[in-house]
Amino acid sequence: MTAPPFTPSRAYPREEVARWDIETDVAIVGFGIAGACAAIEARAAGAAVTIFEVAAAAGGSSAMSGGEFYIGGGSATQKAAGFEDSVEDFRAYLTMAAGPGADQPRIDIYAEQGLAHLDWLAEQGVPFKGTYLPGRWPEPPTDDTLIWCGSEAAWPFRDVARPAPRGHTAQAFGRGGGAMVMERLIARALALGAEPHFSARALCLIADRAGAVHGLVVRIDGTARMVRARSGVILASGGFICNDDMVRQYAPRVSTVNPYPITAGNDDGSGIRMGQSVGAAVTHMEQFFATRTTFPPESLIKGILVNEQGQRFINEDAYHGRVAQYALRQSNGRVWMLLDDATFGRPESFPQVTIAAVGESWAEIEAELGLPVGELVHTMDAYNRNAAQGTDPLFHKQPEWLQPLTKAPFAALSACIPEWPAVVFTLGGLVTRPTGEVLDGAGSVIPGLYAAGRAACGVPRWGDGYSSGMSLGDASFFGRLAGKSAPAR
Amino acid sequence: MTAPPFTPSRAYPREEVARWDIETDVAIVGFGIAGACAAIEARAAGAAVTIFEVAAAAGGSSAMSGGEFYIGGGSATQKAAGFEDSVEDFRAYLTMAAGPGADQPRIDIYAEQGLAHLDWLAEQGVPFKGTYLPGRWPEPPTDDTLIWCGSEAAWPFRDVARPAPRGHTAQAFGRGGGAMVMERLIARALALGAEPHFSARALCLIADRAGAVHGLVVRIDGTARMVRARSGVILASGGFICNDDMVRQYAPRVSTVNPYPITAGNDDGSGIRMGQSVGAAVTHMEQFFATRTTFPPESLIKGILVNEQGQRFINEDAYHGRVAQYALRQSNGRVWMLLDDATFGRPESFPQVTIAAVGESWAEIEAELGLPVGELVHTMDAYNRNAAQGTDPLFHKQPEWLQPLTKAPFAALSACIPEWPAVVFTLGGLVTRPTGEVLDGAGSVIPGLYAAGRAACGVPRWGDGYSSGMSLGDASFFGRLAGKSAPAR
Repeated sequence: MTAPPFTPSRAYPREEVARWDIETDVAIVGFGIAGACAAIEARAAGAAVTIFEVAAAAGGSSAMSGGEFYIGGGSATQKAAGFEDSVEDFRAYLTMAAGPGADQPRIDIYAEQGLAHLDWLAEQGVPFKGTYLPGRWPEPPTDDTLIWCGSEAAWPFRDVARPAPRGHTAQAFGRGGGAMVMERLIARALALGAEPHFSARALCLIADRAGAVHGLVVRIDGTARMVRARSGVILASGGFICNDDMVRQYAPRVSTVNPYPITAGNDDGSGIRMGQSVGAAVTHMEQFFATRTTFPPESLIKGILVNEQGQRFINEDAYHGRVAQYALRQSNGRVWMLLDDATFGRPESFPQVTIAAVGESWAEIEAELGLPVGELVHTMDAYNRNAAQGTDPLFHKQPEWLQPLTKAPFAALSACIPEWPAVVFTLGGLVTRPTGEVLDGAGSVIPGLYAAGRAACGVPRWGDGYSSGMSLGDASFFGRLAGKSAPAR
Repeated sequence: MTAPPFTPSRAYPREEVARWDIETDVAIVGFGIAGACAAIEARAAGAAVTIFEVAAAAGGSSAMSGGEFYIGGGSATQKAAGFEDSVEDFRAYLTMAAGPGADQPRIDIYAEQGLAHLDWLAEQGVPFKGTYLPGRWPEPPTDDTLIWCGSEAAWPFRDVARPAPRGHTAQAFGRGGGAMVMERLIARALALGAEPHFSARALCLIADRAGAVHGLVVRIDGTARMVRARSGVILASGGFICNDDMVRQYAPRVSTVNPYPITAGNDDGSGIRMGQSVGAAVTHMEQFFATRTTFPPESLIKGILVNEQGQRFINEDAYHGRVAQYALRQSNGRVWMLLDDATFGRPESFPQVTIAAVGESWAEIEAELGLPVGELVHTMDAYNRNAAQGTDPLFHKQPEWLQPLTKAPFAALSACIPEWPAVVFTLGGLVTRPTGEVLDGAGSVIPGLYAAGRAACGVPRWGDGYSSGMSLGDASFFGRLAGKSAPAR
């Protein structure tokens, strides 16, 4: 089998480059939020910056996001709303949320400099109104700019870090604030003189025999161009949810959860593969974000989830992505949300949810769902008895969400895998230092190569611990660091 | 940071090799079972074979195994014991056992040629008495050579493949048949003329600019020797359970389960890193085998396991490694095995198990363990009521193991993570074709490079589906294929 002339999986030898078609200091692959923030900082440092974006316009998958930045530590907005937060609590939350294999140095710098990063975003033109929206929202439906958007107030997170809302969201009416965030950051990068090429596909890196990266080959207008990056190449090209082969190889469980990828269509893993072509290590490749947002209405959080054993398996007030990960792991992927007349509703994000059973008693629901005799009845009896006392001795759901489910008629919404797609994107990627420097398998820096955003494995690296805004926060913050590091080399 | 002169993470340039110190056709790294079987086949094909083993003697971690080969399809031993098995059932079992991301071509060839492989092992001198030992055993304590050693008879496996015992074990008295298996295979490889070097550490591969592998650098007697492998290098160097950095990076959950690695001490991941240095892809790196064997005595399988919610979470008659994986994932790692006077015993493999509670009623045990009020009592009532009918509607434990736990006194053995170490080894590794050819990120063959055994990701690649003998079976079978493929290049 002959390899194609240019493939992300094989670096082109520096020694064979006859002439450079394009010369720059910092070459950035991808004009999503990591690329935009890297460009802004690299320009601020005086470097010539060229951005290669495979799509016809900038924005990437970041522009499809909610525009939330998961940042805490005691912002003005948090304080104005009456919440105390600290760098220590923020750090502790992030550490638990990163799961086994948390990257502590990365978490530390993100926690310590998070508030300054919010200020910086504002300076770039991202508006934050500074107002808090109470309740539980996946994204603010108003133009408020602080919400609860993780598992802060839920067990076991509340036991390690004082709860506070940390979802700092760009001011925009309604959902999808990410488009506005990107509009501002793109404008800023361009105003500062970053030079973009659109419909420009990065084909492979250019590296010398010693393994140092000198540039990349980019296809522009159908022609392969040799691009010299005197300071470095920053891979800000996103994750790999669009690459079926990589998903199958690295995150095969994605295919089992009825996936509905969140992506602008170019999260093809090519940046990760380019990194690997020069010996870069990858980590947490099996991890992915998955969710099936139930609220609004909030009353659904007062319902309970049971598996095919008729057992509860999670505190239902945890972050929706955590709840989803647990649900997706139950045997045969069979899970139902149980509601009474006082809590019944259809998830706004999935109004076509299947109503799997309706009945005048929980015994009827149990029978209709075909659950083991007596199990659901016991689960409901125990839950209701405890909820009436304001406690959940099994999973420590918080009192705010505890309400006996005793008002007939009762209903079961299907959360079985085939019936409710899971929104997904990948969390694994290249191993980097907080500076963005890409590391090889021995932990050595690969000279001239940087990565940020979902091409790198960042602060969020555990589906069970994800919170909204972690990826945008990480990608913007570490995009900046990469943009500072490369010119300083 | 300057890279050391030779590191597994960077291939040495072919162009800079001034002279070859050692020349051979097939260079094999590691003299465990994959290396031994590769050597036998490569010699049979007429190739000059040189084996580099880092330890002072051959055997590797394979020699510490039980000497079981997970192979089915209708062997003479299976038939003599009255079991029907088929290639189709064997294949179906392996496919489910490989989990999401099963490698179907690999499974297919293993299932189809498994019986011939057993014959081949016998021809090499590995004795199989041909007798079946009834019951449930981690390894035969007798010199019988067929046992049940997976989840064949347990839900959900029994629903996809007709159950049959497939643990074909080398004949040896008592446990640890792996030492005898290796003695025979090592002797055979040497008799055929494979040339071994012991205390010989493979430092890095030697590759040309195009990425083809030509040999490796090996340290022998303190000196780096340039080894030319005209046909190819076979990495048979084992997994990475001894490499803390790699475990932290790739399989961080290992560190959370109180790990007790099974290894002869050289599963340092260096083969995997050498593969990566020439662009090889890796897969399933987060997966690991883990177990805490409860039986014998078999009566413990009749006990039940509950988590800190007082809920059961698995059919306790599944393979001990599957049961352990589920136990290790329960909240706070807190799990207990509940037994009555009729079933009580201490696990032979862990007699120092902590008895966490003893009582005259399940309510007493529930209180002593601090479980939510009424949960364990309900779990036991329901389990006992159903067990008396010979059913387990929750987890489908088979009737053979269902016995009401009603004879006081009652006891709870602690299976909490800190109190009971989990025996572990890694399952992830290099991506290979069934031939052993190592593939890069684009799915192209890396010329001259082969891998087998736990340096490669094999048939077993899912902790939840592992069965005893899968790794030895896979390593010996695909070691042979690599040993055939390399000389044919």
